[in-house]
Amino acid sequence: MKQATHTLTVRTSHRGLVEVTKAVADWLSEQEVATGLLTLFCRHTSASLLIQENADPDVLGDLETFFERIAPEEPGRYRHHAEGPDDMPSHIRAALTQAQLSIPVAGGKMALGTWQGVYLFEHRRRPHEREIVLHLIGE
Amino acid sequence: MKQATHTLTVRTSHRGLVEVTKAVADWLSEQEVATGLLTLFCRHTSASLLIQENADPDVLGDLETFFERIAPEEPGRYRHHAEGPDDMPSHIRAALTQAQLSIPVAGGKMALGTWQGVYLFEHRRRPHEREIVLHLIGE
Amino acid sequence: MKQATHTLTVRTSHRGLVEVTKAVADWLSEQEVATGLLTLFCRHTSASLLIQENADPDVLGDLETFFERIAPEEPGRYRHHAEGPDDMPSHIRAALTQAQLSIPVAGGKMALGTWQGVYLFEHRRRPHEREIVLHLIGE
Repeated sequence: MKQATHTLTVRTSHRGLVEVTKAVADWLSEQEVATGLLTLFCRHTSASLLIQENADPDVLGDLETFFERIAPEEPGRYRHHAEGPDDMPSHIRAALTQAQLSIPVAGGKMALGTWQGVYLFEHRRRPHEREIVLHLIGE
Repeated sequence: MKQATHTLTVRTSHRGLVEVTKAVADWLSEQEVATGLLTLFCRHTSASLLIQENADPDVLGDLETFFERIAPEEPGRYRHHAEGPDDMPSHIRAALTQAQLSIPVAGGKMALGTWQGVYLFEHRRRPHEREIVLHLIGE
Repeated sequence: MKQATHTLTVRTSHRGLVEVTKAVADWLSEQEVATGLLTLFCRHTSASLLIQENADPDVLGDLETFFERIAPEEPGRYRHHAEGPDDMPSHIRAALTQAQLSIPVAGGKMALGTWQGVYLFEHRRRPHEREIVLHLIGE
């Protein structure tokens, strides 16, 4: 049984979902672990992780619209506003999605379903550099 | 330290929560692992996983009502509609719940609380065959 | 490779977020595991886990307000009410957040980001004693 860790850096350009499936799969393929558990951990409170359909880009747009509606930027709605009007909505969006995902590894690959992609969900309006810690255990 | 994996297939008949606690516990009991970590991974983007109260069935009905209200089927609300009016609401419901759950194993059993049950949450209206990948590590 | 487990008991006094970062870090520091995976599992369906910003307390207040608005206590809104008007909203809030969190361990510490804290989210109005099962695997 062995472990491997890595920090994946993702540059985001604006609010929305950025697919990281390939970057994660590329790192995994170098680890020579056939069976195991891969954990992704997002080191931020205004970005998060999500597994979603990666076939129709409209799905990603509809998801973004849903989260803008459920946690709107609105003057006076939040007490926390020192970091900008998009910061508190970002924390709410992060709370509703995931800081962490664990994915079984089988045959050296993530056991994702046919339509599943792994996404970093940027919740801030401006570009950010985001870190995802990867942890793999298996053999 | 050892690992075991399995794919659990669940046939759903309609929207709502299907308890899988017993099916998971039955598989776990055959693995002869006293202490470990059990991970469930749902290989779909219109079904998800949830830990919920398994005592009063009204809880499951109220949860279903909540998710129908927060992500309604409504003509013109979503751009993604090629797969039917219940598909985009399904992706939103999946985003708000979990694709993956990890549960510590103690004494050969999942360390669930007294009232906790493990559920597959079907978000589509029609019957589907769903796959949950199980991964166990421990000894 | 080794494992360690522990049950952390948290006494809550009312609805809202209780930081447990230090209690978890203290236990972790005694385990002599440099690299690994730490899993927290909440054994309740009316409390849950959340990673959030631990800098500005207003964030925690705004989160509480958001969840009160999205799952309000309202006569006639839920069928499940035998355990009090705050019980069904609690189950919804638990469904929208996490029963479980897994955090990579590096250099003997949780690989949290600068602003991330680990919280137990109490959803009931009255004080409760809550159990979080900790599971660590690594070396």
